[in-house]
Amino acid sequence: MKKKGNLFVICGPSGVGKGTVCKELLKRRPDIKLSISATTRKKRNGELEGVNYYFISKENFQDMINKDEFWEYAEVYGNLYGTPKKYVLEHINNGEDVLLEIDIQGALQIKEKYPEGVFIFILPPSMKELRNRIVNRGTDSKESIEKRLKAAFREIDFIDKYDYYIINDKLENSISKLISIIEAEKCRVKDDIYKLIQKYKEEAK
Amino acid sequence: MKKKGNLFVICGPSGVGKGTVCKELLKRRPDIKLSISATTRKKRNGELEGVNYYFISKENFQDMINKDEFWEYAEVYGNLYGTPKKYVLEHINNGEDVLLEIDIQGALQIKEKYPEGVFIFILPPSMKELRNRIVNRGTDSKESIEKRLKAAFREIDFIDKYDYYIINDKLENSISKLISIIEAEKCRVKDDIYKLIQKYKEEAK
Repeated sequence: MKKKGNLFVICGPSGVGKGTVCKELLKRRPDIKLSISATTRKKRNGELEGVNYYFISKENFQDMINKDEFWEYAEVYGNLYGTPKKYVLEHINNGEDVLLEIDIQGALQIKEKYPEGVFIFILPPSMKELRNRIVNRGTDSKESIEKRLKAAFREIDFIDKYDYYIINDKLENSISKLISIIEAEKCRVKDDIYKLIQKYKEEAK
Repeated sequence: MKKKGNLFVICGPSGVGKGTVCKELLKRRPDIKLSISATTRKKRNGELEGVNYYFISKENFQDMINKDEFWEYAEVYGNLYGTPKKYVLEHINNGEDVLLEIDIQGALQIKEKYPEGVFIFILPPSMKELRNRIVNRGTDSKESIEKRLKAAFREIDFIDKYDYYIINDKLENSISKLISIIEAEKCRVKDDIYKLIQKYKEEAK
C-alpha cells in the first residue's frame, strides 16, 4: 500500500518572505521536492533548466495549454509562466511531498483543480513590518511600494480559502511551524484511509 | 485578540498504548491541560481529587446531567463517568490546549457536541502486535483478550470520523507526530481568522 504524498502550496503577499521560508525548508528537508514552473521567458545568466524553470518555446507552451497539462498559467510582461501537473503528480503518486510557491491568484486556480492540496498563507507580523520589508529590499519605487501594499490588503481577504496561516516573524519559528504542518498532514485521515483499514482486516484472516 | 485553544481528543482500541502516549506528552508539554472526568465511583488508595477524577456523589452527578453539564457520560459496572464541559471550555477560552483521552463511543458523542475538537485515532502497528500488547499486560483472560480484539476491529471502522491517525510503533515517533498535530492546529485557518484579518486592516488606518 503506497501512501500518496501531499502538495503544499505556499502563498502570501509580496515582501512577506515566503521565498526565504521555502528555500530554508528545502535545505533542511531534501525529501521535499520543489515544483518547477515552465516559462517561455529567455534563460538568464546562471539559471538552470529544470532547476529555476523549464525553459520552453511558445509553441510548446501553447501545445501544453491545449493538452490541459497546466494547473494554472499566466502571462507576465509578454512571457508565459505555468505550473505543469505532470512533475508534481509523479512525485505525489510516488509518496513524496511537493512544495509549490505561487502568487495568490495562481494558488486559487490550483485549489479548484487540486483541492486535496494543502494551502498555506504566509502573513507578515504587521502591515507596518510588511512595508518595512518592501522598503528595505530597495528594489521598489514609492509608487510600486504602495501598489504592493494595496495588493497585500486585497489578498489577505482570501485567507479563508487557505488551510493554514503562518505569521512570518522569525524564520526559525516559521520553518518549525511549516514542518509541523507537513508532518501533521502525513497523519491526516484522507480518502486512502480505507486501504489502511483493509490492511488491518486482512491481517486477522 | 485572544486566540482560542484546541481540544485534542485521543482515542484508540484497548491495549494500543494511548495512555502512555498521553502521559508522556503531558510530561513534556506542561502547557497542555488534561481533561479530568467526573465519577461517582469511590476514590481508591493513592487517587487524588481533581487529578485522577472529580469524585462526586450520585446526586451531584444526576444534577449535572439535568443541567446538561456533560459532553458525554456512561455507566460502567454501576458507576457513572462523565466529561464535564466547564473545565475544558475554561481552558480553551483562555487560549490553552486541552487533551482528552476517551473511549471511541465517548469520542463520537463529543464530536457531535463539539465538532471543532481535533479527533486523533491511535492505531497499533498491526493487529498481531495489538494482541501481543494485550497478552503481555497479563491482566486479561483468554476470553477477555478475544473480546478486546473484536472490539478493536469494530472500532477501526470508525476511523473516518477522525481528523488524524497515529500508528503507535515507537513512543518517540508517536509523541513527535502528536506534537506536530498540536502545533499545526495552532496554524489552522478557523472561524476566528476574521479577527486576525481585522487586526491587519485596522493597522493600516
